[in-house]
Amino acid sequence: MKRPFEAKCVDLSTAGIRVLVLHTEDARDLDLKAMDRAAVTTNGAEPVHCIVDLTDTFVSPGQAGLFKEAYSKLNISDGDKVYIEPMGKPASIAHIKEKMDGKQHSDTEVREIIHGLMSEDLSDVELTAWITAIYIRGLEKEETLSLTRAIVDSGTTLKLNAKRVFDKHCIGGVAGNRTTMIVVPIIAAAGLTVPKTSSRAITSPAGTADTMEVLCPVNLGKDDIETIVNKIGACIVWGGAVNLAAADDKLIRIRHPLSLDPRGMLLASIMAKKKAVGATDVIIDIPVGEGAKIKTAEEATILAKQFNALGASLNMNIHSLLTNGNHPIGLAVGPTIEARETLRILNGENVSPELIEKSSQLAGVLLEVGGKAARGKGRDMALELIQNGKAGIKFREMIEHQGGDGKIKIDDVPMAQYEYTVTADTEGRIEQINNKGVSAVVRNAGAPSDKVAGMYLHVEEGDRIRKGQPLFTVYAKSERKIEQALEAYKQTQPIRMAKIILQTLE
Amino acid sequence: MKRPFEAKCVDLSTAGIRVLVLHTEDARDLDLKAMDRAAVTTNGAEPVHCIVDLTDTFVSPGQAGLFKEAYSKLNISDGDKVYIEPMGKPASIAHIKEKMDGKQHSDTEVREIIHGLMSEDLSDVELTAWITAIYIRGLEKEETLSLTRAIVDSGTTLKLNAKRVFDKHCIGGVAGNRTTMIVVPIIAAAGLTVPKTSSRAITSPAGTADTMEVLCPVNLGKDDIETIVNKIGACIVWGGAVNLAAADDKLIRIRHPLSLDPRGMLLASIMAKKKAVGATDVIIDIPVGEGAKIKTAEEATILAKQFNALGASLNMNIHSLLTNGNHPIGLAVGPTIEARETLRILNGENVSPELIEKSSQLAGVLLEVGGKAARGKGRDMALELIQNGKAGIKFREMIEHQGGDGKIKIDDVPMAQYEYTVTADTEGRIEQINNKGVSAVVRNAGAPSDKVAGMYLHVEEGDRIRKGQPLFTVYAKSERKIEQALEAYKQTQPIRMAKIILQTLE
Repeated sequence: MKRPFEAKCVDLSTAGIRVLVLHTEDARDLDLKAMDRAAVTTNGAEPVHCIVDLTDTFVSPGQAGLFKEAYSKLNISDGDKVYIEPMGKPASIAHIKEKMDGKQHSDTEVREIIHGLMSEDLSDVELTAWITAIYIRGLEKEETLSLTRAIVDSGTTLKLNAKRVFDKHCIGGVAGNRTTMIVVPIIAAAGLTVPKTSSRAITSPAGTADTMEVLCPVNLGKDDIETIVNKIGACIVWGGAVNLAAADDKLIRIRHPLSLDPRGMLLASIMAKKKAVGATDVIIDIPVGEGAKIKTAEEATILAKQFNALGASLNMNIHSLLTNGNHPIGLAVGPTIEARETLRILNGENVSPELIEKSSQLAGVLLEVGGKAARGKGRDMALELIQNGKAGIKFREMIEHQGGDGKIKIDDVPMAQYEYTVTADTEGRIEQINNKGVSAVVRNAGAPSDKVAGMYLHVEEGDRIRKGQPLFTVYAKSERKIEQALEAYKQTQPIRMAKIILQTLE
Repeated sequence: MKRPFEAKCVDLSTAGIRVLVLHTEDARDLDLKAMDRAAVTTNGAEPVHCIVDLTDTFVSPGQAGLFKEAYSKLNISDGDKVYIEPMGKPASIAHIKEKMDGKQHSDTEVREIIHGLMSEDLSDVELTAWITAIYIRGLEKEETLSLTRAIVDSGTTLKLNAKRVFDKHCIGGVAGNRTTMIVVPIIAAAGLTVPKTSSRAITSPAGTADTMEVLCPVNLGKDDIETIVNKIGACIVWGGAVNLAAADDKLIRIRHPLSLDPRGMLLASIMAKKKAVGATDVIIDIPVGEGAKIKTAEEATILAKQFNALGASLNMNIHSLLTNGNHPIGLAVGPTIEARETLRILNGENVSPELIEKSSQLAGVLLEVGGKAARGKGRDMALELIQNGKAGIKFREMIEHQGGDGKIKIDDVPMAQYEYTVTADTEGRIEQINNKGVSAVVRNAGAPSDKVAGMYLHVEEGDRIRKGQPLFTVYAKSERKIEQALEAYKQTQPIRMAKIILQTLE
């Protein structure tokens, strides 16, 4: 049953789904309820599938309210004639219901759901039900594999000349953990191919993409990435600008409101991105500790085994590494000062020693796996590539090819106009520096949207300090932001001193 | 962190949630992601809570797009200054997550979620996750009780003078099962109080409210219902016009796309509506059979016991009745012809004998429960109240008080302009008449939105028929609709003849 309507075009774009707004009376007549589907067509054109919303006021009977996604696809204007025909539910809805009932998905079923997600034939409500069901019922190994492959196929994939492609991933949660910008130039300097796509900050004060962007553009497309990597062996770009693993971003949007992180989906999300760049050899950095995402070694071991098994099924060689995630790794936190710290390290300066050590160890694993270093010699070779300047040269080559100034000096990187240094009000020993508290300070200083915002730690865990000694400096673009950051410091108290007398009872 | 914005008012109303549309850059600056929450205020006014949606085009940086629900509540116009402050998640989100993890809700937690639903502080995505979790994890008896009470408290309740209030409910799925319009006048004629609220058709071709509306208005408010019932003891109105069990309608909207019918929610939904009208004694008609919602007696028995137990906790006296749901009960299907059939039956004509018998038996249970008939004598008393015209007089009194013409004659009810009678093309015995097929025919004829659309069955299950004998008549307002109905008949074949030779192999 197809009925003609007059289009009312609404200059509004909705995240996700195409919406058709109908008057309650018309909907009743067409037997359509809110969240049902209808096909909208003009004469002879390809139908556009929409989700129905109802109103008593916004459109009159006989009118069809169409949001931007729908009317631009139909290529119509306000007042044009459109036809509306109710549609059944897509088959993938039955699969979602089956997952709720505890059934295992077939490969085809997973593909149909991801297709429904990409074609926007599935609504947020339906996708939420699916993700909730997966959270409760779990995904079997084969289902996770199917999901990974479907996510890979939902986007573009890189075509590189190298036979072996190396990559690294960190599951996050540690402040100042900017190893990527050191590991990538080291292994590329040794001749390995590494097309690194990174994320922007989600809950942290800076993602690798945010920090790299201080030095050069990171919003590169597929063609540019392929050209650069085929030429110089490496890049560090923002993954969001390339259409890799496209379904993943859409899934993350729905997972966000309830912080739903079903294990199978987390694994598929990470591995699909690696597969999409053509990676053959990958290290996964899993920080473990109280302030990190993964709290215990047991939990981390299970996760590591799942990564390795999924990698094997995808013909990828995965090395999962459990690392110390109790405290910040680098001393600089915030895009600009992290970028400056990276340049310093690659210039051979001995700053943020723990960051240098961790980066060398991670790079070392890849150098050994890639046959560039003998077994057990990778870490030393990595350190040497920093010290002899070859990693630094490679890094500047990457900056230059991505459109930045390869000859940039550290002092050319503009700093914040305001800074404030907090000193110790007592002597003692630093017992713990908490990641979450440090993140809160830097975010309150304005990061990641304000790149100059940051916090530089002058002390490390275990340091003995005297009264009046500088503990850290905050950077921000205004005094107000400095105050906000210090307020966050007061509330979160991320630098904890060791105590002898824990409590006094009087 | 509160920031000033310029309001952009969008004359669009969204079902459910209040939306705040921000430019991606501003959202990033405020650390807000899609589906996060923010409080919008003007100077000194009460803040309005919104769900954030992002755009790169619809609003410019510095602008805050506000839909009708939000800007009318804030009482502002386009271009006014508003302040936006990010908000944390409501506590009820933690409860939803806990239900996913299999935890039992406390009474307070259920109330907080229903409060979040009513205040529109919970989004569709969050509510879907909750309903999905309940579908998978289930609700314990105490949780169902909490939910029922929370739904009752979410809307208005009727205040009637009678000490005992009687009611009936049918869980549906059987065509032509219009018992309510016969049961209610019978028991009201005997002196019982019965404030009947009914639904409009959802998946069927006619709801009781649709059929009653052929004879008189059914969109009555709380005050009118109380006045009428206190005066004449009964009414039959549309439940949707009164604000009873308000949360239920909102839950049904979310349950619809995935046809999610978690048992605890179904029980709470039905019982809350009974409790809200103040019912003390209720019969629940549970049709059982292949073509009905409940397929087996075992399943029906479990459901019946759950109704009875929940009723006891709510201080209600519940009588669940398993009834034959294999085939249509009345011979007339469709609002107008059902209304005419009801008038005929209450005039004492012997039409739709099975509908008369079922109505008398249901009314009989209530007459016995209400102390109007001796044990075992209810059905006979009910039949007598039909035959002596007292039920008919009460029914016409109800029509009159609800604003219709109490003296209406059957032929005053306008019929469809077109009709077509299908005759048997072979002799034989009618083995089965299928509910779903009959519904499909009548819906295709135009019901429920077109009240004259319908199907009158001239035969019943078990009838021996000869070739050329009329099987049924379809009614519709146009020839095209008649054709559509006949096409649906061809496809669904709801009238099945008994076969002797089931198959011939040659």
